[in-house]
Amino acid sequence: MANLLENIDEVLLMGPGPSCVPPSVYEAIARKTLGHMDAAFIRIMDEIKVQLQALLQTRNRLTVPMSGTGSSGMETCFVNLIEKGDAVLILINGVFGKRMQDVAGRLGAEVDAIEFEWGTPVDVEQVNAKLEQKAYKIVAIVHAETSTGVANPVKEVGARLKGTESLYLVDAVTSLGGMAVAMDEWGIDALYSGTQKCLSCPPGLAPVSFSEKAMAALAARRGKVPNWYLDLSMITQYWDGAKRVYHHTAPVNMLYALYQALFVIFEEGLEAVYKRHQDCHRALVAGLEELGLRMLVPPESRLPMLNAVRCPESVDEAAVRQELRRDHRIEIGAGLGPLAGKIWRVGLMGHTARPECVERLLGALKNTL
Amino acid sequence: MANLLENIDEVLLMGPGPSCVPPSVYEAIARKTLGHMDAAFIRIMDEIKVQLQALLQTRNRLTVPMSGTGSSGMETCFVNLIEKGDAVLILINGVFGKRMQDVAGRLGAEVDAIEFEWGTPVDVEQVNAKLEQKAYKIVAIVHAETSTGVANPVKEVGARLKGTESLYLVDAVTSLGGMAVAMDEWGIDALYSGTQKCLSCPPGLAPVSFSEKAMAALAARRGKVPNWYLDLSMITQYWDGAKRVYHHTAPVNMLYALYQALFVIFEEGLEAVYKRHQDCHRALVAGLEELGLRMLVPPESRLPMLNAVRCPESVDEAAVRQELRRDHRIEIGAGLGPLAGKIWRVGLMGHTARPECVERLLGALKNTL
Repeated sequence: MANLLENIDEVLLMGPGPSCVPPSVYEAIARKTLGHMDAAFIRIMDEIKVQLQALLQTRNRLTVPMSGTGSSGMETCFVNLIEKGDAVLILINGVFGKRMQDVAGRLGAEVDAIEFEWGTPVDVEQVNAKLEQKAYKIVAIVHAETSTGVANPVKEVGARLKGTESLYLVDAVTSLGGMAVAMDEWGIDALYSGTQKCLSCPPGLAPVSFSEKAMAALAARRGKVPNWYLDLSMITQYWDGAKRVYHHTAPVNMLYALYQALFVIFEEGLEAVYKRHQDCHRALVAGLEELGLRMLVPPESRLPMLNAVRCPESVDEAAVRQELRRDHRIEIGAGLGPLAGKIWRVGLMGHTARPECVERLLGALKNTL
Repeated sequence: MANLLENIDEVLLMGPGPSCVPPSVYEAIARKTLGHMDAAFIRIMDEIKVQLQALLQTRNRLTVPMSGTGSSGMETCFVNLIEKGDAVLILINGVFGKRMQDVAGRLGAEVDAIEFEWGTPVDVEQVNAKLEQKAYKIVAIVHAETSTGVANPVKEVGARLKGTESLYLVDAVTSLGGMAVAMDEWGIDALYSGTQKCLSCPPGLAPVSFSEKAMAALAARRGKVPNWYLDLSMITQYWDGAKRVYHHTAPVNMLYALYQALFVIFEEGLEAVYKRHQDCHRALVAGLEELGLRMLVPPESRLPMLNAVRCPESVDEAAVRQELRRDHRIEIGAGLGPLAGKIWRVGLMGHTARPECVERLLGALKNTL
């Protein structure tokens, strides 16, 4: 029997995630597995919490990586906070806003949505108008919409919600580690992310953080969380306190990888990391424009780490991606939903956000187009 | 800042899981991350499905590893099958049966349970009597009860359920890879397992398999599965068929590890693997009895891979575990629930089921007691 792992290409991951992983994170994930109740492992867990708090600029005690991919983080935030009939407002301008709508609806919420054209940001005026009409238990937004490359005004919507009863729920899957996320200052109550974007860690974990207000809402539930696996009231007893209570067997080696990924980020320093993402983004856009390509998103709303590039009408979008993968070992992403076939999505996330990656892609694209 | 990963001990993992991981699986988990839609990665996914089918002795098309730990497999089986008010019967003789009761109850099922003394197996006569009185949509049992070391009569209960409308749901977290699991022959409709027991892979994935009957029940639901992340009707579109539909970003490196772990098992051969577990179990029990220790479970119901050992009343149960960990770098498990403080749980799972591990533990125990 041939072993398929022996022939894995080293691919330059410039799609919407997973991103490239630094060598030390690969080393970390292969460290010897410890028991999930081992004191040495619990020290690693504690340090992960501290680093995640620093990255999120939060003092939230409940700041933990959930044992699933980024979408399990979305599920976690909604399932712990929603009870049947709760009014939820979702701000949608891409796939991940749509996903929030689906997740919340399945959990029995009364979901209202405001939809914005894909490729444009959430409009704060429209949000304010909606909030004048109706009070919501939860207002949810995606910070970095991975499907379009748009940065949404998370801070501005948060400012509007301050002092209200609403819980503010934010998807920071693609933003975290690539641009500032100030959870406490922006008034965010529940936030989730993923490891495989700007944290430069393989996919498999979802950092989640709940404010005191979100914790109070969880404690005030009429019934149990209808999801044992993601019930934060139990998970917090494993991740916090003097005596750790077994809940489920933590994904030990994935947590080693996250520990190391965070270590690498803080070694470089947050400001330097964010600047590197911006610098690479600018170099990429300049290079793409030199090739005659145009960006989907207007400059003021562009994300540094997810670049949506319009595919010229004369070009076979899928063929370009296939050729890049086959001949250049570079992965870039396709468009989703209404943007399928119309854009490429170029990721500059974490360890992928390096000048040499930008140059390699631009060279390969020049060759291919 | 000190890096905590640099000082990780290599611990001989002889608790209830995680178990020891073979070197080639550590190599696998550190292979270069591929995109989750990459054709080379999809070939690996396809091979994982085939190997899991062989291990489970099933032809079920829906046989996939879920992106979470074993408990997410439990959640998956129940959340996809239960609708509000469904009658569910849970057979309980340990922590994991209790957990099933909690999971099913949260999902709105009408849960009946039969409880058996911890350390004894499920009694088929009592199950039959209950089934005479009432029809259940789901009957659920744990194959290898990790909290007590008891093997439950999964085949016998399955025989009773054949020809009925009930769905038969089985927890194979600790059994799979250490003893035969014949999903189709035993009439199992929904099964879940975990990677960190006898598959000798780090924790983080939950193999799940659904029969045609279970798939039909899923398709006949009145509403959507109230859990987007674990919705098998969507996940199957990513894992199966000619065109793969993105659902969530698969935990790529964890799946490399599972691929390799299955590769190692089939290289050795299933019969040899099961015999190795039995041989190590017998050697362990003989050695423990020589030390004057007694087993919790009567011989006919003992699991090979999870050995519950009575702690003598004169001995400090926790102190022994701590000394084994500190002085001998061996982890064994504590008792849970009513067995806390009364037993040790010694795992002989997968790569841990080797004669040298048994000898090392017996030597250390002799020293410690």
